[in-house]
Amino acid sequence: MFYENGKKILELSGCEAVYTSCLYQLRYITGIEPENGCAIVDATGTTLYTDMRYMEAAEKLLKGTQVTPVLYKRDEMLKRLATYKNVGISFNQMSHVEYLALENAGAKLENADKAFSEAMIVKNEWELNNIAKACEIAEAAFNELLPEIKEGMTEMEVAALLEYKMRKLGAQGLSFDTIVAFGAHAAVPHHETGTTKLQFGDEILIDFGCKVNGYCSDITRTVLFGDDGKHEEFKKAHAHVLKAHELVKEQLVAGMTGKEADAIAREYLKENGYGNLFTHSLGHGIGLNVHEAPSVSPKGEMQLCDGMVFSDEPGVYVAGEYGIRIEDTITLKNGKVMSFMSKTDRNLIIL
Amino acid sequence: MFYENGKKILELSGCEAVYTSCLYQLRYITGIEPENGCAIVDATGTTLYTDMRYMEAAEKLLKGTQVTPVLYKRDEMLKRLATYKNVGISFNQMSHVEYLALENAGAKLENADKAFSEAMIVKNEWELNNIAKACEIAEAAFNELLPEIKEGMTEMEVAALLEYKMRKLGAQGLSFDTIVAFGAHAAVPHHETGTTKLQFGDEILIDFGCKVNGYCSDITRTVLFGDDGKHEEFKKAHAHVLKAHELVKEQLVAGMTGKEADAIAREYLKENGYGNLFTHSLGHGIGLNVHEAPSVSPKGEMQLCDGMVFSDEPGVYVAGEYGIRIEDTITLKNGKVMSFMSKTDRNLIIL
Repeated sequence: MFYENGKKILELSGCEAVYTSCLYQLRYITGIEPENGCAIVDATGTTLYTDMRYMEAAEKLLKGTQVTPVLYKRDEMLKRLATYKNVGISFNQMSHVEYLALENAGAKLENADKAFSEAMIVKNEWELNNIAKACEIAEAAFNELLPEIKEGMTEMEVAALLEYKMRKLGAQGLSFDTIVAFGAHAAVPHHETGTTKLQFGDEILIDFGCKVNGYCSDITRTVLFGDDGKHEEFKKAHAHVLKAHELVKEQLVAGMTGKEADAIAREYLKENGYGNLFTHSLGHGIGLNVHEAPSVSPKGEMQLCDGMVFSDEPGVYVAGEYGIRIEDTITLKNGKVMSFMSKTDRNLIIL
Repeated sequence: MFYENGKKILELSGCEAVYTSCLYQLRYITGIEPENGCAIVDATGTTLYTDMRYMEAAEKLLKGTQVTPVLYKRDEMLKRLATYKNVGISFNQMSHVEYLALENAGAKLENADKAFSEAMIVKNEWELNNIAKACEIAEAAFNELLPEIKEGMTEMEVAALLEYKMRKLGAQGLSFDTIVAFGAHAAVPHHETGTTKLQFGDEILIDFGCKVNGYCSDITRTVLFGDDGKHEEFKKAHAHVLKAHELVKEQLVAGMTGKEADAIAREYLKENGYGNLFTHSLGHGIGLNVHEAPSVSPKGEMQLCDGMVFSDEPGVYVAGEYGIRIEDTITLKNGKVMSFMSKTDRNLIIL
């Protein structure tokens, strides 16, 4: 399967070989992410260059496949690279210094960014399974977390507890630094989790995710820590954000562009008086990166199709008062939306 | 202070301006790491280009300094960049695609990798304080962890618990994915933490660290989970690795090269029959990156001096049997070694 991934990039690039040393691209075409490693894909197979540290794991994982791990000797690798008519690389993910080194060694380099992106944008079954597992862990951890949230805990303590639960449930890492925002902090979409203590009546916004075999989940829930009777505007807005989130799931079909998907939520929120308060995109692609193609925003020109994975995350933010975001990781299957999230409540929970 | 950092790079580069969009370099010269941001340093000050998400935090942090956050308008930034006689950038940390975009906009780019590295290699007091705090948290978490390690726990559970404790103690993130290796797994220097369960008599190697304001700690301890009487070779080797670790602290003085520092531990282990079993470098620089300059290895030609921070981590590995590594984060002060670690025991602990 890993060779098939590399071959897809090779074919899309139109080059005789494809080269990368970027970690997530290596994960895609070899299954592992070796520090200081690289790989060459050509019509005969993929060679993974790595050092002793990763050799045992690589040999075990790749036994019997067309991906061959070998000990990395840089001179030999460079010599081989120079023998190809042309080599597709990712201009986006390669440092300028590495570009110069390969060019200097005689490699005829071509920009294959489009091939990398196009190959990786549609997920195969193994990839979808990993994303599903990462979503399952995130949801289970969140459900375990809720009854353990207590008054006086800091944002960082809540984040630490949630991350601990994800790790215990089998997450191999985090998709990104967990965002926990209490009260008006939630009005900042990328609030930096801090030492503010939880008080009765605070809202809590939690945006989080974890990784399984390199693949990410991404989810946001907004709840209330007790009802102090002062949250009428917040509750109204929560209901509208939830409706916008659900409309996307109902109305989005394969063939629509990212822009059209975004408009489903944006138009609804506008009609209900929240037009200026939805200050970011509806969503972003999710895979080995938590932010990748396709763009699901007012600028998203690409058609969405089966096997793409992205977020559905409308939000409403009122500076100094409140913020609401409800986010699932979703995919398109048989032309319709399928959410990876089914175990956590999207309705307003009051703890 | 952040402008002083940028100015140091500017002066070392000999350029009229310095530009970066690399996150850790932005942290060094502006104090924050804005996604999709960048900064220009010149003789008059530093301009941080960022979007609304980071504006409030940036304005608060940088008030009254010579670092000015402004809303990022790419065209304006590019136009300004083209007005300089020359612009120092990091060929190492800039993608080839960004290099082409800047060049295309008329910027006269020069390689300032050496200036970035030279400026960042010697830490100022604020940086040393952050590293000290990150080390303090790591040690405190480890001491809390030890009594909670129980038979039957998996490597991942131990890692999750340790990470949770670091987060609760105020860590803002991890320096790297925690390595927990039970038994013979410890013989693999970069073992991937897995689901193996802890048994009586197992050795436990834990390599971990956390971040404070972007700055890393790095520490390794090797302990025994009960003494089954079958660990004579292991115990002997542990004593020798500890001796090698301590010899470095005693004998290393400012002015020695990384190679000479490495040789202190390497020669000692060789004399005692472990020559072939110390399979990696003595250490690496530590700062905003957990692996950075200076190199403290047989290839380290640079002189070590006051304010540099690096690891002292000799190790001995016998495939299929055992592995030992004892690591502190250390610095040079008044010409001598000062360790940031003083709260955890380096002697062989038997749980």
